[in-house]
Amino acid sequence: MTAPGGPAGQQTVRRHNLGLISTALAAGPSSRAELAQRTGLTKATVSSLVDQLIARRIVVEGEPAATGVGRPARPVQLDPDGPVALGVEINVDYLAACVLDLTGALRCYRHRTVANRSAAPAGILAQVVALAEEVADELGQPLLGGGLALPGVVGADGTVLRAPNLPSLTGTMPGRELAAALGLPELLVDNEANLGALASLRTEPAVGPDFVYVSGEIGVGAGLVVAGELFRGVHGFAGELGHVVVTRDGPACGCGGQGCVEQYAGQEVLLRAAGQPDLERLEAAVAAGDPAALAAVEQAGSALGVGLASLLNVLDLPTVVLGGGYARLFDAITPALAEQLDRRALAPRGAGRLSRSPLGTDAAVRGAAGAVLDRALRDPAGLTGSGASSGSSTPWRTPRTG
Amino acid sequence: MTAPGGPAGQQTVRRHNLGLISTALAAGPSSRAELAQRTGLTKATVSSLVDQLIARRIVVEGEPAATGVGRPARPVQLDPDGPVALGVEINVDYLAACVLDLTGALRCYRHRTVANRSAAPAGILAQVVALAEEVADELGQPLLGGGLALPGVVGADGTVLRAPNLPSLTGTMPGRELAAALGLPELLVDNEANLGALASLRTEPAVGPDFVYVSGEIGVGAGLVVAGELFRGVHGFAGELGHVVVTRDGPACGCGGQGCVEQYAGQEVLLRAAGQPDLERLEAAVAAGDPAALAAVEQAGSALGVGLASLLNVLDLPTVVLGGGYARLFDAITPALAEQLDRRALAPRGAGRLSRSPLGTDAAVRGAAGAVLDRALRDPAGLTGSGASSGSSTPWRTPRTG
Repeated sequence: MTAPGGPAGQQTVRRHNLGLISTALAAGPSSRAELAQRTGLTKATVSSLVDQLIARRIVVEGEPAATGVGRPARPVQLDPDGPVALGVEINVDYLAACVLDLTGALRCYRHRTVANRSAAPAGILAQVVALAEEVADELGQPLLGGGLALPGVVGADGTVLRAPNLPSLTGTMPGRELAAALGLPELLVDNEANLGALASLRTEPAVGPDFVYVSGEIGVGAGLVVAGELFRGVHGFAGELGHVVVTRDGPACGCGGQGCVEQYAGQEVLLRAAGQPDLERLEAAVAAGDPAALAAVEQAGSALGVGLASLLNVLDLPTVVLGGGYARLFDAITPALAEQLDRRALAPRGAGRLSRSPLGTDAAVRGAAGAVLDRALRDPAGLTGSGASSGSSTPWRTPRTG
Repeated sequence: MTAPGGPAGQQTVRRHNLGLISTALAAGPSSRAELAQRTGLTKATVSSLVDQLIARRIVVEGEPAATGVGRPARPVQLDPDGPVALGVEINVDYLAACVLDLTGALRCYRHRTVANRSAAPAGILAQVVALAEEVADELGQPLLGGGLALPGVVGADGTVLRAPNLPSLTGTMPGRELAAALGLPELLVDNEANLGALASLRTEPAVGPDFVYVSGEIGVGAGLVVAGELFRGVHGFAGELGHVVVTRDGPACGCGGQGCVEQYAGQEVLLRAAGQPDLERLEAAVAAGDPAALAAVEQAGSALGVGLASLLNVLDLPTVVLGGGYARLFDAITPALAEQLDRRALAPRGAGRLSRSPLGTDAAVRGAAGAVLDRALRDPAGLTGSGASSGSSTPWRTPRTG
């Protein structure tokens, strides 16, 4: 009995096995013998696959580890000097870009304060292209690909379906234009909360495989992770925590509803209530014990807790991770928030049920680059396209200064 | 190349293939040649598997269909006179039991009005066992297994984790006792809304694979179906629509919160507001145009719409199916409900976005029996346990009057 199609089947198996090896190495350096044990492949197969990954500059051999007896084992690892992944974020009041190497380490990061809300798409894109190019070229390492985080709902084809805080981008495909400007075949584009959640999943194993990541920027969004995978909903609209109702006859919301979470806990409402011009000043006021600032943060925490309780009663997720601005205000905002969760959420929650994302406002841009890495490591053969895929050629975008 | 383990591997493949045949037949009668085409198995394999299913009394041969030329094809179908599935429901104000045959047809149904809220578990179980035995023995066909629907959250091991409207059952395992009384090895136990959703999935293909089924009994629950599967959450608490917040400082709720959907749209609140003693009388008053009844139903619909909008903004499901009492009040309750959804829910919804379950209050008990059928048809070999599995013996519970 042979696999149907013969060589095609073998190609598929080899491609799958390459992914097994690179995914196993994402956990850290490993000897070929250990890789054989962890993947269930023979040592000969592992050696052949590792050689192919070395030729692709994905894997590199480390220093031999002296084991006492016999020939010392030579560990292999993902190559920190190999191709890298670019993350880009367009937000309402800032742009950001970063590069992660294959090991997941942050290698470059840039953040620029801008005023995008009323800007035209061309102006936003020109600025973000400049920032992305700076970062992409800084290391002189080729680019695996890029990801773009946005404060909006993104369709499966990369169209921005809803971006109330960046209205000029609605209906556009910024990933396509950014990819063209950067010389990449495509860009992964997703919502900031989804990508922040992905960054938590990649870098905070203690959070577990089921959680809600709350992105507190100008808008309030949630990235939902269920059994280790992002839950996006049928059209990509899942996790719109900002438009869960707190009080049905509350303040009018831009969505057409009333009394949505965003009208009580969104950053602009919070700053106005606290009488502070920006998040830095609010943090300072909270630290100084300013009563108006503390009261405003408590009010926001309470409303966010009501909305999260409804969300948890729908989804039964055991853990909440606060990101973005809420991570920065964590100590001040959590007492009122936790009180509402304790009163209203029915399902049992874990010990680490309410935690602070250590990534802060970098989460989404790191998640954007991380999504590119995840895809590359799952299918390293896919990186070279469907054409010729052997040898030491680097099919990726090469840096302009490299 | 042979499958690892030889005979054990072949056993697994045979078992899997039996399930392919029985699942394919759930769509209707079919010839062996059509089955071969639909499953990708050879005609010889299909014939051998069909013979095994006939020996197990799962499949029966129909009348030959004259095709004009050659030997007439003999269609096979699931045996309506073979083993059957039992569904049982314990609710606050009624008990129900039903039997579905292998084709999914409802063969027996009993409904009994009771007052369970303050009853002790032993009393509830004695009544439900009597009702289940009546139904199970009526046809004289052996029993594949049984399922139990409850108005509460059920853990993976069948323990009732939360049943605010049947408090005496909390912490008990009614499925185990009911199974023992009926002579079955086990009983599937699940929440009424989950099983109502499963009944919709089985019997209403137009609803599609992604929807929320709203169960409007004394409690308000939602069964969530995502990509054709029930979404239960980590602990089984997903879909607690009754405890999504409408107004955070609204009436106190039994859950410890305030302003939950159940405090505006639960059946008891609705009847009180309408000044009617039961659902039948409320339906009659609505039909007669009674202003108090119409206003109460409109108020309930509006609050349910607010809660559903929050749920849809979290999950992005395109379709809402109203079941139970809400299905019976469908025409009166939907205008106010739809108005809130239109205002507040962000994601696009389909044409059939708000529909009435044709199953009414039978949905959960039919879903309980349907869950047993689904499991049996996916793995018909599993029905006979791990021991001897050939021949025409009937390993299932045989009826007492059969």
